[in-house]
Amino acid sequence: MALKTAEEYKESLRKLRPNIHKFGKLIEDVTKSPYTRCTVEGHSQIFSAQHNPEYQDIVTTKSNLIGEQISRYLSLICSPEDMIANSKMKRFLFHLTGTCTGGRCVGWNCINAMWPTTYKLDKEYGTDYHQRLKNWLTFAQKNDITIAGALTDPKGDRTKSPSQQDDPDMNLHIVEEKKDGIVVKGAKVMICGVAAANEIFILPGSGYKEEDKDYAVSFVIPRDIEGLTIIETRRPSDTREEEEGFDIPVKCGGITQAYLFFENVFVPKERVFMCKEYKYSINAVLNFIMPYRSAIGACVAGQGDVKIGAAVLVARANGLSSKVFNEKLTQMYINNETTYAVGIAAAALGKPHPSGVWQCDPLLSNVNKVHVATLPYQTSMLAQEIAGGIAETGCMPSSVDFYDPQYGKLLQKYLKAKSSAESRAKAARLVEWATIGAGVPGCMHGGGSPDGAKLLIRANANLEEKVQIAKRLAGIKEDIPEPEKKK
Amino acid sequence: MALKTAEEYKESLRKLRPNIHKFGKLIEDVTKSPYTRCTVEGHSQIFSAQHNPEYQDIVTTKSNLIGEQISRYLSLICSPEDMIANSKMKRFLFHLTGTCTGGRCVGWNCINAMWPTTYKLDKEYGTDYHQRLKNWLTFAQKNDITIAGALTDPKGDRTKSPSQQDDPDMNLHIVEEKKDGIVVKGAKVMICGVAAANEIFILPGSGYKEEDKDYAVSFVIPRDIEGLTIIETRRPSDTREEEEGFDIPVKCGGITQAYLFFENVFVPKERVFMCKEYKYSINAVLNFIMPYRSAIGACVAGQGDVKIGAAVLVARANGLSSKVFNEKLTQMYINNETTYAVGIAAAALGKPHPSGVWQCDPLLSNVNKVHVATLPYQTSMLAQEIAGGIAETGCMPSSVDFYDPQYGKLLQKYLKAKSSAESRAKAARLVEWATIGAGVPGCMHGGGSPDGAKLLIRANANLEEKVQIAKRLAGIKEDIPEPEKKK
Amino acid sequence: MALKTAEEYKESLRKLRPNIHKFGKLIEDVTKSPYTRCTVEGHSQIFSAQHNPEYQDIVTTKSNLIGEQISRYLSLICSPEDMIANSKMKRFLFHLTGTCTGGRCVGWNCINAMWPTTYKLDKEYGTDYHQRLKNWLTFAQKNDITIAGALTDPKGDRTKSPSQQDDPDMNLHIVEEKKDGIVVKGAKVMICGVAAANEIFILPGSGYKEEDKDYAVSFVIPRDIEGLTIIETRRPSDTREEEEGFDIPVKCGGITQAYLFFENVFVPKERVFMCKEYKYSINAVLNFIMPYRSAIGACVAGQGDVKIGAAVLVARANGLSSKVFNEKLTQMYINNETTYAVGIAAAALGKPHPSGVWQCDPLLSNVNKVHVATLPYQTSMLAQEIAGGIAETGCMPSSVDFYDPQYGKLLQKYLKAKSSAESRAKAARLVEWATIGAGVPGCMHGGGSPDGAKLLIRANANLEEKVQIAKRLAGIKEDIPEPEKKK
Amino acid sequence: MALKTAEEYKESLRKLRPNIHKFGKLIEDVTKSPYTRCTVEGHSQIFSAQHNPEYQDIVTTKSNLIGEQISRYLSLICSPEDMIANSKMKRFLFHLTGTCTGGRCVGWNCINAMWPTTYKLDKEYGTDYHQRLKNWLTFAQKNDITIAGALTDPKGDRTKSPSQQDDPDMNLHIVEEKKDGIVVKGAKVMICGVAAANEIFILPGSGYKEEDKDYAVSFVIPRDIEGLTIIETRRPSDTREEEEGFDIPVKCGGITQAYLFFENVFVPKERVFMCKEYKYSINAVLNFIMPYRSAIGACVAGQGDVKIGAAVLVARANGLSSKVFNEKLTQMYINNETTYAVGIAAAALGKPHPSGVWQCDPLLSNVNKVHVATLPYQTSMLAQEIAGGIAETGCMPSSVDFYDPQYGKLLQKYLKAKSSAESRAKAARLVEWATIGAGVPGCMHGGGSPDGAKLLIRANANLEEKVQIAKRLAGIKEDIPEPEKKK
Repeated sequence: MALKTAEEYKESLRKLRPNIHKFGKLIEDVTKSPYTRCTVEGHSQIFSAQHNPEYQDIVTTKSNLIGEQISRYLSLICSPEDMIANSKMKRFLFHLTGTCTGGRCVGWNCINAMWPTTYKLDKEYGTDYHQRLKNWLTFAQKNDITIAGALTDPKGDRTKSPSQQDDPDMNLHIVEEKKDGIVVKGAKVMICGVAAANEIFILPGSGYKEEDKDYAVSFVIPRDIEGLTIIETRRPSDTREEEEGFDIPVKCGGITQAYLFFENVFVPKERVFMCKEYKYSINAVLNFIMPYRSAIGACVAGQGDVKIGAAVLVARANGLSSKVFNEKLTQMYINNETTYAVGIAAAALGKPHPSGVWQCDPLLSNVNKVHVATLPYQTSMLAQEIAGGIAETGCMPSSVDFYDPQYGKLLQKYLKAKSSAESRAKAARLVEWATIGAGVPGCMHGGGSPDGAKLLIRANANLEEKVQIAKRLAGIKEDIPEPEKKK
Repeated sequence: MALKTAEEYKESLRKLRPNIHKFGKLIEDVTKSPYTRCTVEGHSQIFSAQHNPEYQDIVTTKSNLIGEQISRYLSLICSPEDMIANSKMKRFLFHLTGTCTGGRCVGWNCINAMWPTTYKLDKEYGTDYHQRLKNWLTFAQKNDITIAGALTDPKGDRTKSPSQQDDPDMNLHIVEEKKDGIVVKGAKVMICGVAAANEIFILPGSGYKEEDKDYAVSFVIPRDIEGLTIIETRRPSDTREEEEGFDIPVKCGGITQAYLFFENVFVPKERVFMCKEYKYSINAVLNFIMPYRSAIGACVAGQGDVKIGAAVLVARANGLSSKVFNEKLTQMYINNETTYAVGIAAAALGKPHPSGVWQCDPLLSNVNKVHVATLPYQTSMLAQEIAGGIAETGCMPSSVDFYDPQYGKLLQKYLKAKSSAESRAKAARLVEWATIGAGVPGCMHGGGSPDGAKLLIRANANLEEKVQIAKRLAGIKEDIPEPEKKK
Repeated sequence: MALKTAEEYKESLRKLRPNIHKFGKLIEDVTKSPYTRCTVEGHSQIFSAQHNPEYQDIVTTKSNLIGEQISRYLSLICSPEDMIANSKMKRFLFHLTGTCTGGRCVGWNCINAMWPTTYKLDKEYGTDYHQRLKNWLTFAQKNDITIAGALTDPKGDRTKSPSQQDDPDMNLHIVEEKKDGIVVKGAKVMICGVAAANEIFILPGSGYKEEDKDYAVSFVIPRDIEGLTIIETRRPSDTREEEEGFDIPVKCGGITQAYLFFENVFVPKERVFMCKEYKYSINAVLNFIMPYRSAIGACVAGQGDVKIGAAVLVARANGLSSKVFNEKLTQMYINNETTYAVGIAAAALGKPHPSGVWQCDPLLSNVNKVHVATLPYQTSMLAQEIAGGIAETGCMPSSVDFYDPQYGKLLQKYLKAKSSAESRAKAARLVEWATIGAGVPGCMHGGGSPDGAKLLIRANANLEEKVQIAKRLAGIKEDIPEPEKKK
Repeated sequence: MALKTAEEYKESLRKLRPNIHKFGKLIEDVTKSPYTRCTVEGHSQIFSAQHNPEYQDIVTTKSNLIGEQISRYLSLICSPEDMIANSKMKRFLFHLTGTCTGGRCVGWNCINAMWPTTYKLDKEYGTDYHQRLKNWLTFAQKNDITIAGALTDPKGDRTKSPSQQDDPDMNLHIVEEKKDGIVVKGAKVMICGVAAANEIFILPGSGYKEEDKDYAVSFVIPRDIEGLTIIETRRPSDTREEEEGFDIPVKCGGITQAYLFFENVFVPKERVFMCKEYKYSINAVLNFIMPYRSAIGACVAGQGDVKIGAAVLVARANGLSSKVFNEKLTQMYINNETTYAVGIAAAALGKPHPSGVWQCDPLLSNVNKVHVATLPYQTSMLAQEIAGGIAETGCMPSSVDFYDPQYGKLLQKYLKAKSSAESRAKAARLVEWATIGAGVPGCMHGGGSPDGAKLLIRANANLEEKVQIAKRLAGIKEDIPEPEKKK
């Protein structure tokens, strides 16, 4: 059966070898550890939804590989409709969990990036990467596995290329090619949702030249593979996750970001999808970027919906009508729908790839990345403005104090307003969590920086065509070329 | 043959009775008058494109009424693809003309608004408006007629409804119903492209209640109908259109806005599509708004392309590489693509109407209106910033002085930079024309105000759903209703 | 001697009765408790600076009451120069501590608010509040005491005035007037720096009408007065302050916000500065707002300086020149200098009050509040953009893991870039701390909401004067009054 | 008597030799020509105000040279109070005229720029420029002359320095040094208010190196000097100034921008203030920039006031209360007061120069330039949004049509709303004039570009100090220098 239940999913995680650490401790069971359980619960909801008649159309689709219903997170995107359905799912998932479930979505991006890349690779080099990927994906779909994705290398000194670094491990690389596979060393950092994943899909971190060909590598591995050490990062207010009470207001969702350290990890060749074909590393990255930057507009819109709802809850709990904040709410709606819409348009204006996948428009995908990296900040600010001081930053006592046997009654007395003190406090915590707390996803640099997106915008914007349009309109015949940059 | 040539189109205009005035004068021939010839030339390019193999797929489509290729401006929008093709056409037309060709596009909106409205009207009232519209549209398609559209009434005192006005004519209304038609009185104002149109399609200006039912009226008339007096408005720098030289840098495009005064105009009943069915007046307006506000994103993107091209031309003529302005150009690209994309997404997420037309998403259409009313201002500002003082405002002598036999040589000497003085001056004029001159379309209030759009955004944004999402996430069970607005 | 040393200051805090709680625990020594020591260290630096020849002119001034050098935080503002010097001090203090030292500055505002208010009060009612304030201020200056300030009441249901609340304690009020003083009950919430203060200055929270006269009260009390219970709030990532290591990167500064619960607290009459004179409650609030909203522009500029420095440190540690980020840095400079400058201008355009103090311009003070509530968000966003993913949110492992004996070396290896791993990690933590962590001050609602400021902007903007100017310019003689708001 | 009347001022203009051209015609009398009379009327109001008891303190001050009351436009700025008074005057003048009176204000800037420059020049070179300037200024004050100022050269190809240009005249330069003076050739372009001025003060257009020393020149000349040809530029809708009626709604103010062509003009040495001392050319420019960019904040605020008043007039004429637009009006107030305040702060934080003048803070002056180049665009947009379609662009018939004997009554009938049609039309024209018409001053590039200002912001922002602050706070000892820019 291609669709796991939430319990089967959790069981699959419990079977993995513990290799994740945080705060100096080894996490024995990711479904129980306070550092990882929230994100696991978040991902679990995808599995519950798969079996919920109300939601299953949102989160599942029929596989063109195995002919069964599968998770959309394991599907190939073959049409604008597929892509739009994926965006809708992501917005829905933010509604369910309040935040990011990156442990499935980045893996999905990797699949859809390497599908066309391996197709092209094989065409040029006569390799069999595409078939390997197909075989593995068939397995993944049949077993409904959860796949995180990893691109970002530590990179070391940004003034130097991978092979120029003092330490060659600053970017993940192949240290040995064996008959039956490869050995890799290095790290991938800031990787989302690893704790909630069964496997991890690795892509090259950038485009490479010949001298860096050992860095052009793509493969997929079980999360608990030998030689892989994982350290979870620290996030804002993350120790609250160790507590009871409502200071982490959301129990059914959460984020993790991990550093993955590869100490001579062996990857069998049937799981390797690129091996030193450096010319295609940039191709893999660009193929990744387009659906990622298109769909992420739905993610931040979904969280924006939560910010709106939470802010209005506090306002009403304060005794203020949402109408007082019409101007601000409208701006929040506009921000949400803008990132959502630009992503949808990138899908609608995409093009089919010979390998069968649908590729989003590169210009609009990258325009969306810039919006995704900026508009949610304004939406957060407006949520704090609507919700008032209590939800801004550091202006409400802890849940422990709220229930303190000695003086908790004072807080309960004075936090009461139009609603009960408890509801008001919880709503305020939700605003804090989503705008300055543990629920804030990395929308600025996640999936690449806005400056990188701007480079791609310029590369795709066709300036010269616009210049020709202007020349024709103004009746200018003279050739006016680009001058040298001023000394 | 359903596709006129440019010459046939102009000829059709020349046949109309002169009833347009400007500056106290009657315009005898709109194809020749300096006040109207630019916009006629702009519209003519649509007809030329229809016969140009390179462009005909952009501007024509196959009719589902007459089975022939027709102008997209006369087509029913029956799918997201139709709508997206319309957006692409509009962006293309701005490239061809530098500005708005509202004399065809608003009429197209009226057709696609009244198609579903008459369908519903007939269902409820057993009337035959839908068939009348179909008959007329068949005629229009077969004869490739150019149709302006008109909604905006003078409105008088905004504190009063139409029937409460001191002067009942402040909104166009039915003064008499005859067996074979209706007699209307009043005005429609700020109507785009009337001088370039053969006919004018009238919609009600707003939603009306029973006491205002005489104002619920829709029909189509020849531009030169008896009783109709038209006065063209004054636009920035419009008297330059009376001159030779390059101070109006664009000859192949231009805008007109007209006031239409109806002094007891008789409209035969086969051309009437709504007659006092006041409940449906809001329906007509909303059906108009959705495709209009979706497609206009492509219009301002198209003009944004011109602003980019023109600004870079001046910069290069000044000796500056466009790379110096990378950050500004990127913002201009983002602005253009955002309005374009949100419109595309409104199409992609639209829904089919039982009458057969495709209706754009109302939330995204209205979000787009807000962007359309704001982003082009920033794009203009950036164009002026890139182009430098010469193109900002009032910083370059006239074309007359440039060619003055006595001192013109001084201007020609000193305006020379990296390019010739003439090319530089023309490019600077194009920036001025598109950002503060005769080429600036009314993107703020055209098709309704952004505040009106914001009302519709709030009406479609589903706030309570977001509140429920937040309550579930924060584990709040208490009912927290909207309080009364604070005294 | 009017200027304490840092050690004398800490000693004065240690002498106070413990009455501050956090996480269910009573804080025995605020100078040692992890929950309060950072803010105490921050405030201590003011005292060190008082004795540092390089800094003493910044933080001290000569008293016009006692004729000695005193802390500027205890001084009366009698000229624009005084006010500007105060702004400079605040920017400097943010440089020293990285964040807010509200335990001195709000008290200073209260002094300068009640000085003119008591002056006017006495003129009207023949009371002796002004002399009481003078006596107490003389004492405070002579003993260099640290004074927090408190305005914000819990307020309860915002649809009701204080006396209409179900619970009359929702706003702090007088429950009994005795011969020698008053008894008060209620709470003040979200009060900054109480843990670092010797005394607390209370102001009414709003303007009141006669039925709410019991709420019109101002006084000053020792922080450890009988009947006062204090609960510290929870701030983002505050439990990190319990840890060693660099996850709280700044040890010499920090914020606290407290809830103060008054359970029948007796205040002797010589410390009472307003007692039911409800007409003057709004006066006190407005007198508070003007210097507060003027000076806070320097605060957020000071923290903006830190954000710039920290972001550039990470960028350089990454191997990227600050020049890459010129556009972003320029925007950060502009944001910082704008809030700083508008505050300075509010001082420069202020007016003398008959009581001797200088009052900042109300229009500009409130304009500044709006900037203060918005620009720092953009500055934070830009800091995160420059610093990269490592500093954005949740993308770097903990200090504990960094030094872990088993796998810490992996982090140390891979976090190395152009600088050492440790410097890079510390700089990244500083960006996090200042933009999404424990160092973020409440610039949105602190000192009142931006919507409140906007009300005051409109009240001070003199719209009718502008309308008259326009009428004269356009040659309009007709009276065009404000119509009724549209139904 | 140092203070001319308006009539004396106009008489002084009429005495000048006609050397100004527009549209191929020589302007015989600038006080009567439709192309120049509006700006002359605007400047005349300064002279009327000098004799109006209500206004004379605003526009006059006591000279420290001649001991009499003089125009502030001829005064040396010796204190922050002087500078602030100048800002207030400028805002007031925009209220009186609706727009810029650059024919006096730029000259004033030149005086205050060359005063400290000549002081330093003489110190280094033992020249007597400072005394020459003093003598001339004494004459100017005694005769209340009106002085335009000119910096901007045509510049030719921006990739080349002045001496590298193919045509050496692309920047104004000294072609001959004679015993009693110098001969200059070249041009100054985009010069404001020349038609309203008696004299023109020339400054070098940039900083120059030794090879360009012939371009380092400053002097003052009568506007009608032999060899000087002046051509007025074309501004938006400027031909309306040839008409009667209200399409130019403001008769008491207007702008001109001129190109000045110097064909071997002889300047006597007592009027020369810099002659090839190239090292000081940048000094002159920077000394000019500081007061200019400080005071211009008041100018755009003053015009912003007009935009607010005009927009509200139209709204009220439409029947809409200004309260409907509270959010927009507040943003307009904020924009206005921000540019005003940052300029005031630049004055308040300035420093005295050894020559006796007060110099505004360079960082804040340049921050203000960026605001001045951006905020007024938003203010204009908001004015158009409030005023509605009628005032946006091209949506109202001409004044000629309004009064047309045949159909004018139709316009008069239908333009009536809450006010008369005429008042409504005039108010709408005022919005158009101030936002997209002949009243729009060049706030983007006037006095230099915002990109130039950003360079100076970075030069004055002291980045390294901020980095040191951050290092200290984060406890980083390691040296982290600026890396090389990434390849």
